[in-house]
Amino acid sequence: MNSTSLTAPIASQRTAAAHPLDGVFSPKSVAVLGVTPTPDTVPYDIFHNILGSGFQGTVYPVAPGKRSICAVRAYRYVLDIPDDVDQAVIVFPADVVERALEQCGKKGIKSAIVISAGFREIGAKGVARERRLKDICKEYGIAMIGPNCLGVINTDPAVRLNASFARKMPDAGRIAFLSQSGALCTAVLDYAREKHIGFSKFVSFGNKAGVTEIELFDYLHADPQTDVILLYLEELRDGRGLIEAARRVTRNHGAKPILAIKSGRTPQGADAAASHTGSLAGEDAVCDAVFREAGIIRVASIEELFNAAILYAYQPLPRGNRLAIVTNAGGPGVMATDAAIRCGLSVPRLTDETMERLRGPLPATANVKNPVDVIGDARADRYMAALEGVLADPNIDQTLVILTPQSMTDIEAIARGVCKFHETADKPLACSFMGATDVGPGIRLLQQAHIPHYILPEWACEAMAYVQKIRQWREQPAVSYEPLPVSQAAARAILDESEEGYLDEDKALAVLAAYGLPVPPHRLCTTADEAVAFAEKIGYPVVLRVVSPQIVHKSEVRGITLNLAHADAVRGAFERMQKHIAQAAPQAEIRGQLVRGMIPPGYELILGAKRDPVFGATLMFGLGGIYVELFGDVTFNLAPIDAATASRMVRQVKAFKLLQGARGKPPADIESIEDCLRRLGQLVSDFDRIAELDVNPLIAGPAEIGNAVADVRIRLSK
Amino acid sequence: MNSTSLTAPIASQRTAAAHPLDGVFSPKSVAVLGVTPTPDTVPYDIFHNILGSGFQGTVYPVAPGKRSICAVRAYRYVLDIPDDVDQAVIVFPADVVERALEQCGKKGIKSAIVISAGFREIGAKGVARERRLKDICKEYGIAMIGPNCLGVINTDPAVRLNASFARKMPDAGRIAFLSQSGALCTAVLDYAREKHIGFSKFVSFGNKAGVTEIELFDYLHADPQTDVILLYLEELRDGRGLIEAARRVTRNHGAKPILAIKSGRTPQGADAAASHTGSLAGEDAVCDAVFREAGIIRVASIEELFNAAILYAYQPLPRGNRLAIVTNAGGPGVMATDAAIRCGLSVPRLTDETMERLRGPLPATANVKNPVDVIGDARADRYMAALEGVLADPNIDQTLVILTPQSMTDIEAIARGVCKFHETADKPLACSFMGATDVGPGIRLLQQAHIPHYILPEWACEAMAYVQKIRQWREQPAVSYEPLPVSQAAARAILDESEEGYLDEDKALAVLAAYGLPVPPHRLCTTADEAVAFAEKIGYPVVLRVVSPQIVHKSEVRGITLNLAHADAVRGAFERMQKHIAQAAPQAEIRGQLVRGMIPPGYELILGAKRDPVFGATLMFGLGGIYVELFGDVTFNLAPIDAATASRMVRQVKAFKLLQGARGKPPADIESIEDCLRRLGQLVSDFDRIAELDVNPLIAGPAEIGNAVADVRIRLSK
Repeated sequence: MNSTSLTAPIASQRTAAAHPLDGVFSPKSVAVLGVTPTPDTVPYDIFHNILGSGFQGTVYPVAPGKRSICAVRAYRYVLDIPDDVDQAVIVFPADVVERALEQCGKKGIKSAIVISAGFREIGAKGVARERRLKDICKEYGIAMIGPNCLGVINTDPAVRLNASFARKMPDAGRIAFLSQSGALCTAVLDYAREKHIGFSKFVSFGNKAGVTEIELFDYLHADPQTDVILLYLEELRDGRGLIEAARRVTRNHGAKPILAIKSGRTPQGADAAASHTGSLAGEDAVCDAVFREAGIIRVASIEELFNAAILYAYQPLPRGNRLAIVTNAGGPGVMATDAAIRCGLSVPRLTDETMERLRGPLPATANVKNPVDVIGDARADRYMAALEGVLADPNIDQTLVILTPQSMTDIEAIARGVCKFHETADKPLACSFMGATDVGPGIRLLQQAHIPHYILPEWACEAMAYVQKIRQWREQPAVSYEPLPVSQAAARAILDESEEGYLDEDKALAVLAAYGLPVPPHRLCTTADEAVAFAEKIGYPVVLRVVSPQIVHKSEVRGITLNLAHADAVRGAFERMQKHIAQAAPQAEIRGQLVRGMIPPGYELILGAKRDPVFGATLMFGLGGIYVELFGDVTFNLAPIDAATASRMVRQVKAFKLLQGARGKPPADIESIEDCLRRLGQLVSDFDRIAELDVNPLIAGPAEIGNAVADVRIRLSK
Repeated sequence: MNSTSLTAPIASQRTAAAHPLDGVFSPKSVAVLGVTPTPDTVPYDIFHNILGSGFQGTVYPVAPGKRSICAVRAYRYVLDIPDDVDQAVIVFPADVVERALEQCGKKGIKSAIVISAGFREIGAKGVARERRLKDICKEYGIAMIGPNCLGVINTDPAVRLNASFARKMPDAGRIAFLSQSGALCTAVLDYAREKHIGFSKFVSFGNKAGVTEIELFDYLHADPQTDVILLYLEELRDGRGLIEAARRVTRNHGAKPILAIKSGRTPQGADAAASHTGSLAGEDAVCDAVFREAGIIRVASIEELFNAAILYAYQPLPRGNRLAIVTNAGGPGVMATDAAIRCGLSVPRLTDETMERLRGPLPATANVKNPVDVIGDARADRYMAALEGVLADPNIDQTLVILTPQSMTDIEAIARGVCKFHETADKPLACSFMGATDVGPGIRLLQQAHIPHYILPEWACEAMAYVQKIRQWREQPAVSYEPLPVSQAAARAILDESEEGYLDEDKALAVLAAYGLPVPPHRLCTTADEAVAFAEKIGYPVVLRVVSPQIVHKSEVRGITLNLAHADAVRGAFERMQKHIAQAAPQAEIRGQLVRGMIPPGYELILGAKRDPVFGATLMFGLGGIYVELFGDVTFNLAPIDAATASRMVRQVKAFKLLQGARGKPPADIESIEDCLRRLGQLVSDFDRIAELDVNPLIAGPAEIGNAVADVRIRLSK
């Protein structure tokens, strides 16, 4: 919760410089196009909702052939309306929407909400229709929500707009909810009402042909009614834009957290990716990483979404992760402690002073450690004494009050007492009154006072853990990407002359070398003499590796010979391999054999990059094949990365400890590994044509030996 | 759900052979000892609850100094009651309970529920009190619940006993709930009432000084009112007994599942264990393994407990894990699919016939794959058509119906339709009507018809996944432990002559050899000559390892020399080490040096065993230090184990794939590893004095080379 928004007036006072989305949320006049007089249909409900929800402006029905709707004078066309109109809500059948929108443009309307379905979601015909809507919006400068959406709600008392077919207007509150699924909105509104959760803005953005979550983020960032933004997203289109917008919203002055559900976590029918790294860079893992880097807190369900949001929206941000638990029952206290620890909170000992202070008002059998057990027969006085103690304890950042309904428990008195503490406490407070009917009146008191309540203590702990993530994100230093000095021109020269497909190894190595990656001395040789001469120059032992555009997997055709220790061995191997490959892959055009020094043993790392259709260049890091394959022990990030991110990526894999030198092995040179990762990130973001890049393995040695690229594969797109 | 219990009459018809706990649950007469006339106190409430809840027997208040309580004739002592009494409920203060219980014994009462607190939970004084209660129970043959508990509820219409201070009697139902925490019971009862969840028996067993969860399992196994048993447990005392009882209940004829919460998952103050394996054998991981082997399904929260229980109790057991989803909203359908896959369910394609069949009644825009999207404006007819189709589909084992409240949705008609299907369907059915107020009437219809309802589709999927575990457990072959032929006498001879502490390496190896573990040739030598002679006999290279009771960590004092290739090397190393260790560990009594053949390289395995105070001998298996330390990639089980369990343990570690021969390495001989694990399990269960045993590493080679114990540590208790 930021103090700016807390002290903001309840009604909005936007400055003169209008935001492009003002017309969407705060129109002075709205025309509903396509209204029909039949209740319980979408075209009627929308108009009726605007009319009946206390809209502070004027609403006009456009209903060809009708004189009035709900006793309000109707118009044949939007152009017939004699006054200025700020917003059009279009509910005409899909095939008429285009004409209606065009007329809105001519009328000078700058915002439109297209409720109608029958666009991109129905296939090619709908895609074409949707494209035409986009064109019209562009031509007339219209900000469009939808099509195929539930609509928009603004609870601001100065506006009170329910331009949706949701059955009821939600309460006003500090939470904005954005959803790509319209159907989910109706469920969420119903769910929230029961829990006394209010909203500032409620937006179903459907096919997002016009306005997307990105523009909505920016609008809500400046919205004085909104403290926290919730998002349900099914499909990401502009990953980079999302990240930049999210960073602006979640980190800058007046920061607001974004909590999101991204569904489609397990794409059953996902295309099998072409390369090794490709198949690992599961879309969802990338999405996780991107959200993390963007500061979007990803949650798993609607329940978690609101559990975290109400805690953030109505309680101060905690200074740390230390939790006190006050309970009248041991069992739930233990369960809450388990959950807290599992979520990464701590449940520290209270100070001696606090424990001393609690011993007075609490009975001898009470536990004054943490959790503080006020015992089953506790009434409000004991709860208050315990709360007073733990809230004042310097070891405590937040408190969870657990209540089980025992025969002595004066549930409402305890609830009222907690509400009183809440008025003055500067530390977050949450409650879990366990049960339903008996504890119901107490829960309602808490909810009305905006004290987050959770039926299960475990959920309270989960919510607190999410709020910790918000705090940690704000404290994390900003990304400050600075490109490293590289020979971009040298890399460009190679890439420009290369066609779609895999680069030959010598060229791939040259590209890496241009970007300062540790490529060992090598030469592409076409004769055994040349190979021997180069081996003599760099010293033995050496490796021979066949180079052919048609041979991507060299070892499959025995196109590699290791550990050649003298000239005769090189010559013999060169000739043997040449002969052998001519038989094994007769169609392959052999460009020669790469002679390279043997790389001393070290840690085997995988550094990968892949171009994601949504996020652009992504980077992957992990240790050796085993760790990646068996344990999925990899990290992802968008490229390019700054030094801090490189450091985080390397440390995020569990096998990082190995690199520090486990079991008597010398440690790897971590800094130089980070440097490689940064250079690789820079390379793939400089060149859009690099579709996939795997350095597998990079052999990482101790500082005095350094790292070496042992194998690389670069696939170019057109 | 087993058919026996389904067809059982509603009122109980126990056979003549009475169960010892019949008196606890189905007494014909109850005396409440310690009743007071003050409402809203435990002593009053208990009596009032029995009297006012429709108890089918007779209840007598024992209230010294009172003529009557609630207008019922009271008695000074239980012995004054002129009739036979089956059960005593004791609510006297702790210091009087002992005398009261003694009188109950004299009166011939065979079952007692001790509500009073002030026993083991308050420390030494209470422990002594509790021990005296146990003695009295033993003397008079009393089955005692408690002390320090909420009491017992039996909803059987032939009994209707609410011998608890819970505010209200729950509905009758097919679920039995057992809780060690009394306070949790009040919350659970309140919670369950709201969800129309009924109970057969409800037991708070508190300090379990008399009757424990184990006897309760056996009683409920035979109870015709109970289909599923829920348990909240804080403290395990007799792990082996629990497992045996749970296996009887969950696998034999008339099997009933047990779902349990075991709290204290993160024991913050757990003792740091002495040995390496010890510290890994986290109590909680052992508990997980034990529950798994016992067939107890461990869940994480109250919500999960009931979510799974209602599905099992009121729906048929599915034949497989294939789920169909019917929804009127795409978003929640995607979220449910994600959750299902994550939980291990599958969401398969429907058959072509089913899809063809669905196309008729559903609109063209509907998705007839799986999830089946009947589209936002669907009314009951479409839902019914979809349900009919998927329920008949041979690819489908269970169905989830999702509903979001749209303006056209006739929620109650859809609920009624689902109820109708439920009457005849032989496949499980669950619903998620998302929201709260709007969908409320529909949810109530479902709940009344015992169709499991979940606010979130994700919860439905989780519940279905737990039911899958129940099915899998029943299908898993029973454990059939057969000891392998070993030289128990040889091992016993060594252990009997050894004192508390670590065994010397030669003795530890001899113990392993007696149990048929692959111990390489070795000899403890006291002179260099002897060492050389033995090395000549077994062949080079050899290893020298110092043997001293005071030196547990040999490498710390450089007490190991590897790779000695000829007689001179052995002699030199022997003398060097002797001299060096005399300086490095002057107090150590050196018994000699162990000469052993070098072990060829292979996979490094850890086989560990530890004696757990609750579970007895436990066994651990994992690969090399890295996998265990960084990834916690280990499995636990109780010892001894049968062949099937050994096979499962080895395959449960993620690194198992390595043993099959990844990256060109030869595969290990998996069967012989399993054999080692079984022998180790047999060893630690044969000898209680083995407190800890680590074979670390066992070097596992391919079949033609075999395995070898490279290092072992055995710690004996007194």
